[in-house]
Amino acid sequence: MKIVVLDGYTLNPGDLDWSELRSLGEAVIYERTGTDQAAVLERAEGAEIVLTNKTPISGAAIGRLPALRYIGVLATGYNIVDVRAAAARSIPVTNIPIYGTDSVPQMTFAHVLDFCHRVADHSRDVRDGGWSRSRDFCYWKSPLVELAGKTMGIVGFGRIGRRVGEIAAAFGMRVMAQDLYHGETPSLPGFAWAELDDLLGVSDFVSLHCPLTAENTGLIDAR
Amino acid sequence: MKIVVLDGYTLNPGDLDWSELRSLGEAVIYERTGTDQAAVLERAEGAEIVLTNKTPISGAAIGRLPALRYIGVLATGYNIVDVRAAAARSIPVTNIPIYGTDSVPQMTFAHVLDFCHRVADHSRDVRDGGWSRSRDFCYWKSPLVELAGKTMGIVGFGRIGRRVGEIAAAFGMRVMAQDLYHGETPSLPGFAWAELDDLLGVSDFVSLHCPLTAENTGLIDAR
Repeated sequence: MKIVVLDGYTLNPGDLDWSELRSLGEAVIYERTGTDQAAVLERAEGAEIVLTNKTPISGAAIGRLPALRYIGVLATGYNIVDVRAAAARSIPVTNIPIYGTDSVPQMTFAHVLDFCHRVADHSRDVRDGGWSRSRDFCYWKSPLVELAGKTMGIVGFGRIGRRVGEIAAAFGMRVMAQDLYHGETPSLPGFAWAELDDLLGVSDFVSLHCPLTAENTGLIDAR
Repeated sequence: MKIVVLDGYTLNPGDLDWSELRSLGEAVIYERTGTDQAAVLERAEGAEIVLTNKTPISGAAIGRLPALRYIGVLATGYNIVDVRAAAARSIPVTNIPIYGTDSVPQMTFAHVLDFCHRVADHSRDVRDGGWSRSRDFCYWKSPLVELAGKTMGIVGFGRIGRRVGEIAAAFGMRVMAQDLYHGETPSLPGFAWAELDDLLGVSDFVSLHCPLTAENTGLIDAR
């Protein structure tokens, strides 16, 4: 069985190994394949399994790969694959929906706390002697923003948005969430569902965890 | 009643006002007073209330301020006041023990997440076109460290240490804590009390929330 990875570098820049995949068949790993479908066709020729991260696979390409039996997207978003053309050939297309459930909320708060503390700026200034030269023991180069009591507005309250809410609550923040679908209401103190306009009006921070296309959500219009 | 604030700048660099204090008596606010006790004596002369943030008040000074009835420390640490001399005169000394319960854990994670993400470095590089020039959509300048599953070792598990533990747990971290006094065991998944050596041996991050003097804790020895 021939297995082709079209753009393996992003998943494995050298700190993982492909031996599990190689144990399943003849695996050919390309580091990158551009968007050119001729290159995709040439590389995927004869493969039963094609794995892609960001390399697009068009319907025309799927039509010209008769051996193809499975397309695996090594990421969450699968807009790069023509899933209708795959379905017409009964080729399953899979994605990895939850690998970002821990890391995306963490990244969100890395940005929030960078805004609140500017650690790198302070670290540089302390090393340059700024704190030593300060007339006061209490010292800051930019305002330090305390999160407790402030409101985190979360647009899109799925797995990732909910995790962002839990972390926000751990920092003492009030959580408001907007979603077209209200799942279970979380047991966070002061939690409230909100319409988008209300959320934008009262939130101190807003974090988007939703598709950004109007056709998917109806949330983001031209305003 | 005369009220003297020896070093008000740190508490109120201009974004607060002292009107509540002024409503209680004749309040004299000094922005800073050095460590020189002669200056302290001159400024505190005749005051019934002296408020200090980092300006020391020695036992000798207390002995020469007969009007003094109350010393308020505008911070948590009260090692700057000779509390024995104050007690001998029945002068109460107060501090503010809990103003850092929200802000210190937040600062702790600002540092943790700066280490994990280097937001400022990436932000600068993105603005400089680094991401645009990157061959891959997935892009980083330094390793991105995921906290979930890692261990946060907390030395000193009081109000602040416990809050650090709650935030760590919200990030999916396992929490280990060392304290001479084991209070209530928190209901964090995977939480464990530990001895210091064990904690240092297995923790991915260690955060100190304890006095750093050997006489207070016995924790930090010469090693």
